[in-house]
Amino acid sequence: MRGVVLYGPGDVRVEQRDDPKIQKPTDAIIRLAATCICGSDLWPYRGIDLPQQPVFMGHEYVGIVEDVGAEVRNVRRGDFVVGSFVISDNSCEICGAGYQSRCVNGEFVSGTIGTQAEYARIPLADGTLVATPERPSDDLIPHLLAVSDVLGTGWFAADAACVGPGKTVAIVGDGAVGLLGVLAARQMGAERVILMSRHADRQRLGREFGATDIVTERGEEGVTRIKEMTKGLGAHSVIEAVGTQESMMQAIRSTRPGGYVGFVGVSHDVAIPGGELFMAEVHLMGGPAPVRRFLPKLIDLVLDGTIQPGKVFDQTLPLEQAAEGYRAMDERRAIKTLLTT
Amino acid sequence: MRGVVLYGPGDVRVEQRDDPKIQKPTDAIIRLAATCICGSDLWPYRGIDLPQQPVFMGHEYVGIVEDVGAEVRNVRRGDFVVGSFVISDNSCEICGAGYQSRCVNGEFVSGTIGTQAEYARIPLADGTLVATPERPSDDLIPHLLAVSDVLGTGWFAADAACVGPGKTVAIVGDGAVGLLGVLAARQMGAERVILMSRHADRQRLGREFGATDIVTERGEEGVTRIKEMTKGLGAHSVIEAVGTQESMMQAIRSTRPGGYVGFVGVSHDVAIPGGELFMAEVHLMGGPAPVRRFLPKLIDLVLDGTIQPGKVFDQTLPLEQAAEGYRAMDERRAIKTLLTT
Repeated sequence: MRGVVLYGPGDVRVEQRDDPKIQKPTDAIIRLAATCICGSDLWPYRGIDLPQQPVFMGHEYVGIVEDVGAEVRNVRRGDFVVGSFVISDNSCEICGAGYQSRCVNGEFVSGTIGTQAEYARIPLADGTLVATPERPSDDLIPHLLAVSDVLGTGWFAADAACVGPGKTVAIVGDGAVGLLGVLAARQMGAERVILMSRHADRQRLGREFGATDIVTERGEEGVTRIKEMTKGLGAHSVIEAVGTQESMMQAIRSTRPGGYVGFVGVSHDVAIPGGELFMAEVHLMGGPAPVRRFLPKLIDLVLDGTIQPGKVFDQTLPLEQAAEGYRAMDERRAIKTLLTT
Repeated sequence: MRGVVLYGPGDVRVEQRDDPKIQKPTDAIIRLAATCICGSDLWPYRGIDLPQQPVFMGHEYVGIVEDVGAEVRNVRRGDFVVGSFVISDNSCEICGAGYQSRCVNGEFVSGTIGTQAEYARIPLADGTLVATPERPSDDLIPHLLAVSDVLGTGWFAADAACVGPGKTVAIVGDGAVGLLGVLAARQMGAERVILMSRHADRQRLGREFGATDIVTERGEEGVTRIKEMTKGLGAHSVIEAVGTQESMMQAIRSTRPGGYVGFVGVSHDVAIPGGELFMAEVHLMGGPAPVRRFLPKLIDLVLDGTIQPGKVFDQTLPLEQAAEGYRAMDERRAIKTLLTT
């Protein structure tokens, strides 16, 4: 089969890889209906925190089950399935508490599995995959694909930030996750949703997803703006979807005392000063999103037409042109690139 | 009146100070029934984060209302009252959400007011003070005094750490706050309460307050012990009551994914690595405890004899001998020193 492999900074290639096979009785093999490039893929692409190469890229996926191991019960050949970027048994104590991204038997899809490919082996299929009631129409594929990471991650961030009716929510980061954090906040009933963005195309999509306000200032100026808009108190809930020191501090400082920060930007060289956090007195929760917790609900919202998270895909390329997709996202020419298989 | 004043590292003196007077119509003047020395008083005593001197020390207090300003409605002359270490109006939006320690009109008692004294002026008396139904008997005074900070702070830490029935709770720090975190955790129904302590006297008091287990290891060894005791997962809830880099990381690492850290040790030179916090995926909440939120409940628990938090006082001295109290706590000869006035 064909798959995307990273060999070093800026060096992604589409290559012939071995077709995946059932290795354990709990595995499933899926044929990808579509896959995509994640903002977090850009970190290794840029040479930051680069794992041992070659890296099989990709961790977002929807597809058709081609084969299952002998012990798989919840999905079967021919099912259309949505998974998440962490394999999880969905039965351990940590999964039971809703943190499937830290399943005791968990593993990351990116690196060794890699779903920017025609096929993928999904371990612990019963815990990881959720089948749709029937084969969805083609126009729903991008929306279901978005569920598998960017929407699930934005949703988790809003959940971790305790978004709810009547709340004022600020979103730091206007990438696909931040934009879908806007959508999540609106779905959860937030009254005011402030997107911090200085890019016209992303502002437009943010408005479409339900942002009520746009703040173009960043850093301390951005914090001052949020305070001005909230009687000097700060937002009730803040979503951090970047992962830098500046964005993390912007998020903490934009939150009122007793408020909540949900952070999902993969942290890079961030150090949170304890004294400032102590005096900020905000709730802080984040990490790799336990997307599996939200899959059934989010799939339903897509299937019944309530949400259209796939609008974050503003570029579609065949898998063979994955390298161009990486370049476009790296240069911010594309918000998010869908790869057809 | 006589009061404790800090002039520099190790230099505390009991001096003649001006008797406090009503300055605003929302003030009250109280005559201290008892006061005490806090673990956090030791930071400036040791010359760390020393504010501009002279510093009027003390922020824990119970006493009798001597005088009230014209606008004070909730307390009156002769009432026995308990306050907290932050002045709060208890009516702003932040107070309403339960974070009175960050009241928009708040100020710290320590430094400019100072309750290690015979009398104290308490601003915003209606919001800050809670009167008991009647004058309590002398044997209850230490317990009510403990409510005003150390119990209130331990209680907040347990609340922030989401302690509840069936939970396993670990406590980092065996000072008065950590020990009362043990008491709080038990009152909140925790099943297992693990106190991390290597001092026999503190272990004994911890057991008396309801600790089910003692862990004597610290740092990474302590984390390993907690993991061994919790099926490799870590505690559901961890209370951090020290404020150092080691104790904060010990707390975060002892918590299971999806679990909760409540931190109340005043942070000194702490920097939390973002990448590790991201992968730890724990809830983090802490800061100066909004003791006012818990005062009515905790006063009731003392008055009906359910709890005896004043047991943390293992030394009682007259106010005149405050300097000896500071030395005893600094040298860990005393857990906590009560000063009679």
